[in-house]
Amino acid sequence: MHRFKITELGKNAFWLRGDEREHLARVLRLAPGDDIIGFDNTGAEYYATILKIEDKSVTCRILETSHPEVEAKTKVYLIAGLSKGEKMEWVIQKGTELGISGLVPLRAKRAVMRLEGTKAVERVQRWQKIAGEAAKQSHRVQEPQIFEVANWSELQNLLPANTQWLISYEEEKTERLHSVLDRFDPLQPIALIIGPEGGFDASEVSWAQEHLGAISVSLGPRILRAETAAIATMTMVLAHYGDLG
Amino acid sequence: MHRFKITELGKNAFWLRGDEREHLARVLRLAPGDDIIGFDNTGAEYYATILKIEDKSVTCRILETSHPEVEAKTKVYLIAGLSKGEKMEWVIQKGTELGISGLVPLRAKRAVMRLEGTKAVERVQRWQKIAGEAAKQSHRVQEPQIFEVANWSELQNLLPANTQWLISYEEEKTERLHSVLDRFDPLQPIALIIGPEGGFDASEVSWAQEHLGAISVSLGPRILRAETAAIATMTMVLAHYGDLG
Repeated sequence: MHRFKITELGKNAFWLRGDEREHLARVLRLAPGDDIIGFDNTGAEYYATILKIEDKSVTCRILETSHPEVEAKTKVYLIAGLSKGEKMEWVIQKGTELGISGLVPLRAKRAVMRLEGTKAVERVQRWQKIAGEAAKQSHRVQEPQIFEVANWSELQNLLPANTQWLISYEEEKTERLHSVLDRFDPLQPIALIIGPEGGFDASEVSWAQEHLGAISVSLGPRILRAETAAIATMTMVLAHYGDLG
Repeated sequence: MHRFKITELGKNAFWLRGDEREHLARVLRLAPGDDIIGFDNTGAEYYATILKIEDKSVTCRILETSHPEVEAKTKVYLIAGLSKGEKMEWVIQKGTELGISGLVPLRAKRAVMRLEGTKAVERVQRWQKIAGEAAKQSHRVQEPQIFEVANWSELQNLLPANTQWLISYEEEKTERLHSVLDRFDPLQPIALIIGPEGGFDASEVSWAQEHLGAISVSLGPRILRAETAAIATMTMVLAHYGDLG
């Protein structure tokens, strides 16, 4: 059944407007009487029937409300050094499917892409849309939040104070990811800092260790591309606590 | 240092021909006296100096031979339902970085792509090249083998008799990947069968259970795209036995 993000939720009905209304009426050509699923990012899922389709909105009657156990119990945030457009987009798409709670695009020193001003704002909107589509496709009931593009100094204020920080670093030879995850508390948020194509500068890693209390980890003996490291790390963290696989 | 696949290995020297020679001489414009690393898919790595560059071959003197512990101890094979070109290519690239030993392209019922005859042979050669490039980039000393496109009935003869088979299936609600991995022997090969975009037909899953003794597993509550399931599963299996993360 097709899934839509609810624009406005009432007691026994909800409304879809904007893109969601367009997608339902124009792209999918659904009609009154058709059943759909709505979600409002609160963790609830609403089975509903389309009552009427108007120019600017679609009205749906709620038949049943459920709270599927589809979201990960451990809140995982990816802090991703800005990479070329396409790579960033699929890290967001894959991360959403895997189950992350949010993603912060990071202005790392070696980031190949510079994003400033309105260009950055538009890009984040586009990324949020990609996360929303991936959330529907993977049947999630909460889409990950794509944060504004941040600098190192802004990271700390974006996530909860009890966040546990990890930074993936090629030069780290002793500390392995899985052993750090054994020590972390899965009931507190976990933030994974992954470099851009060029990797992190040593000064960035020490900054993260000093100011965020981040633990630098190795992902193993093989060198991973930035986007591979991002997806593999999200997978391993979610799997370590039983939220995946 | 740049890495090259050895064409011919001698006692104290090795030779690079074909694409490797072109890449060294034309693309990277290396010269006699420059140091490089050669590997021959035996697990060894050779530090060497370029002695001479000729029209059809490059001669290198071996300075030092080492056997880096970069390859995964558990042999993991991905059996991937044929997906659209680009997706297949990046599953091969990412799988190589993560550490798989081989990949078998599978003609699944719902495969969107049909590959037959010479077209299939050429595609496999292209995929093998992608695996070779990714192996260099990730500093591996053995590149994964890309098998010929296979039908279900051919799978069993492609991999060792002691191979332990897993098949990822959306309809599987009880058996989870990690619990099956606890029961598997990491010293024996593991084959992961992942569907094409459309997923597997129930009859394919029962065929794999009956003829391969495959165990069908769920990857968790969220629906993953075919390529995401492939990468996440390879990551979780390699990480489960300590070969990654």
